Amino acid sequence: MAALVHKAEASPERPLPVCFLSDYGRVDEFVAVCHGVVMQLAPGCSILDITHDIPPRDVRAGALALLRAVQYLPESVVLAVVDPGVGTERKAIAVEVETGWFVGPDNGILSPAVQMAGGALAAVVLDNTEFHLQTPAPTFAGRDVFSPAAAALARGVPLAELGSPIDPALLVPTILGVAETRGGRVEGEVLWVDRFGNAQTNIEPDSLAALGVAPGSSLTVSVGGAPTALPWRRTFADVAPGELVALVDASGLLALCRRDGDGAHALGLSPGVAVQLAPARAQGTPVRIR
Amino acid sequence: MAALVHKAEASPERPLPVCFLSDYGRVDEFVAVCHGVVMQLAPGCSILDITHDIPPRDVRAGALALLRAVQYLPESVVLAVVDPGVGTERKAIAVEVETGWFVGPDNGILSPAVQMAGGALAAVVLDNTEFHLQTPAPTFAGRDVFSPAAAALARGVPLAELGSPIDPALLVPTILGVAETRGGRVEGEVLWVDRFGNAQTNIEPDSLAALGVAPGSSLTVSVGGAPTALPWRRTFADVAPGELVALVDASGLLALCRRDGDGAHALGLSPGVAVQLAPARAQGTPVRIR
Amino acid sequence: MAALVHKAEASPERPLPVCFLSDYGRVDEFVAVCHGVVMQLAPGCSILDITHDIPPRDVRAGALALLRAVQYLPESVVLAVVDPGVGTERKAIAVEVETGWFVGPDNGILSPAVQMAGGALAAVVLDNTEFHLQTPAPTFAGRDVFSPAAAALARGVPLAELGSPIDPALLVPTILGVAETRGGRVEGEVLWVDRFGNAQTNIEPDSLAALGVAPGSSLTVSVGGAPTALPWRRTFADVAPGELVALVDASGLLALCRRDGDGAHALGLSPGVAVQLAPARAQGTPVRIR
Repeated sequence: MAALVHKAEASPERPLPVCFLSDYGRVDEFVAVCHGVVMQLAPGCSILDITHDIPPRDVRAGALALLRAVQYLPESVVLAVVDPGVGTERKAIAVEVETGWFVGPDNGILSPAVQMAGGALAAVVLDNTEFHLQTPAPTFAGRDVFSPAAAALARGVPLAELGSPIDPALLVPTILGVAETRGGRVEGEVLWVDRFGNAQTNIEPDSLAALGVAPGSSLTVSVGGAPTALPWRRTFADVAPGELVALVDASGLLALCRRDGDGAHALGLSPGVAVQLAPARAQGTPVRIR
Repeated sequence: MAALVHKAEASPERPLPVCFLSDYGRVDEFVAVCHGVVMQLAPGCSILDITHDIPPRDVRAGALALLRAVQYLPESVVLAVVDPGVGTERKAIAVEVETGWFVGPDNGILSPAVQMAGGALAAVVLDNTEFHLQTPAPTFAGRDVFSPAAAALARGVPLAELGSPIDPALLVPTILGVAETRGGRVEGEVLWVDRFGNAQTNIEPDSLAALGVAPGSSLTVSVGGAPTALPWRRTFADVAPGELVALVDASGLLALCRRDGDGAHALGLSPGVAVQLAPARAQGTPVRIR
Repeated sequence: MAALVHKAEASPERPLPVCFLSDYGRVDEFVAVCHGVVMQLAPGCSILDITHDIPPRDVRAGALALLRAVQYLPESVVLAVVDPGVGTERKAIAVEVETGWFVGPDNGILSPAVQMAGGALAAVVLDNTEFHLQTPAPTFAGRDVFSPAAAALARGVPLAELGSPIDPALLVPTILGVAETRGGRVEGEVLWVDRFGNAQTNIEPDSLAALGVAPGSSLTVSVGGAPTALPWRRTFADVAPGELVALVDASGLLALCRRDGDGAHALGLSPGVAVQLAPARAQGTPVRIR
């Protein structure tokens, strides 16, 4: 029990952990019902809840949260259910990667994390109904289709038993915008605003470095209207309380923040909002001689 | 550890899981304190949190959430604490069923789930103070009375040691309204509105079938005022985005929903609100020839 | 697995539990990422989440929640992260106590709980970077510094390996106001308002007993303006629904409450607000002969 279970060792006696993300919230009993199904079908299985507070039906937010978390998860079966198309022709799938499996709807929620985990080795549609729960209605696939599949994989059932093989190259991708450099500035967008009000962008520090700026420099950020100047620093403590600051965040991306406050609110940022970052001099600010 | 623990095998070495529901929320440390008590008294016990976001003191909402979840839980000790009468003469009880035990206040929170689990085989009042924690005040029975009792049952302590036997037939019931058919329509009420805005009623599809309607037909729903027409379909995808729809939900009851939206809000529904469902023709809508 | 792990027995095969408190919330994936790090570095480790809904950056609220919970936790490594000074010169520390270890920033969050646990036996600064995760930025010490340290202690790594020893007497304390008796009344403050609207003060029943009052008496509470009379009773059920009541709460402190309602809201109380309690007679109320 105390040793890390490796994917190849998954068995009824030593099930792999299941890591679970959804938009079910924790107010209703949906998450617990899925836990109960997994506990019954894979007794002794540890369940790590990634988050269940993805905004309802927001596949992109779910895909991004999973992407940020995946490299820190143990070898496991990842169960990810944000499923606005439940009951439609969208496929229910399981995907094998080097360190485990991903289970969820084929709507793009899994794709970025699967890539981060090294890419798909194989995939099936979960169409073997022997692994489904009997159900009065097709509206709770998390309980009736996905949790039983995750439990089966956790206890070592071969992927091929769960359904028909499909070409992993045909899985639905999530289109994530790529930041672009144009006219001396980097044009990107906000990916995520966290509990503390830090706005993560899709802008990598290298694209700013290519414009000749580095931590210690000043940037301007444009959100629709006039640009705002703010320092690029290594951490919050490098500016005074209440000041705006740009920094490379724990995912390695540029984030727009406010020390001891809510930077996203101050700048009017929310997921999907376009932002442009540039060296402060690009907006006519005098170039400092260093 | 990896095998499912059966009720008869509960022992200090192999405790049964504890499934825990309350109105404690997760902001304060109440739930964790109960977890800590169970972990100390029944080391190695798995705890499945059903939900802790039952509205404060809402016994009926707690009873309904437990009822919806119970058939998906493993063999376990169910600990359910919504306890507005803490410190009064309301009884603290433990109830034995075929697949485990239920522990909580005798205020109706346990009754529907106990029935769903096959009915009570035995019950005791938790009046053996040897199993209570010492406490400065009688206001936190979840910590001082219920969690220790759940831990004791989980590790195999016989029910009779926890207190004085009582007749399970005398436990406080939860009165749940039964939908009734009258004048060609079914009169029921809303039981629950979930995170997605789906309003579950206490109306079973059979009672509508008896009026000659089936999935594919049109219904009218009346909430106080004028009736609204909506289609009865199998799943969300059978209507266009934004449309209202009635469907049999994952508990097997009629639910009033809106595809990709909040049906309860659109129709003015919340728990306890009376609703009437009828075949659309009953309100003068032309009967479609199929 | 089923036996309680004692501190001295912590080993890779039988890791101590980790008890985890933070201000990370459960909406983002921060908590899960820390769980994943602990599960990978100390496989088989149980994690008890105390709460993650401490208000962002509120070290005092975190310290108080940990203090209320600590005596109910199993022997464990307590991981407590409310860390507004992340990336600054504030120390990252681990502290040994009789029943385990505490890991977190040296900003006062640990101090009251360490005292409650019997005081510090030893402490180190977590400056051995072999135990840190590689990271693109210094903004998520919970993931990169604190979780790895907690996992190491849980699996039996000696404290001294994690960093340089420091004098535990020099750790940053949390200054908690002490209630004082002056002019026939006790002057204190509100420590916490719970989910149910009960306002816990820092006033102990003994200080009121010294003024000649006891449960059953009447008190007056002053919050800035004119005093409000309310009964001191043993539990909620000793007053009518909707009535205000003072009672000794489950932590042994005076709390100001409203039966079946929100006492803090009714009295205008929130954490840090000054309150004065006095025997009702002190405000000219006729003394009852008992």
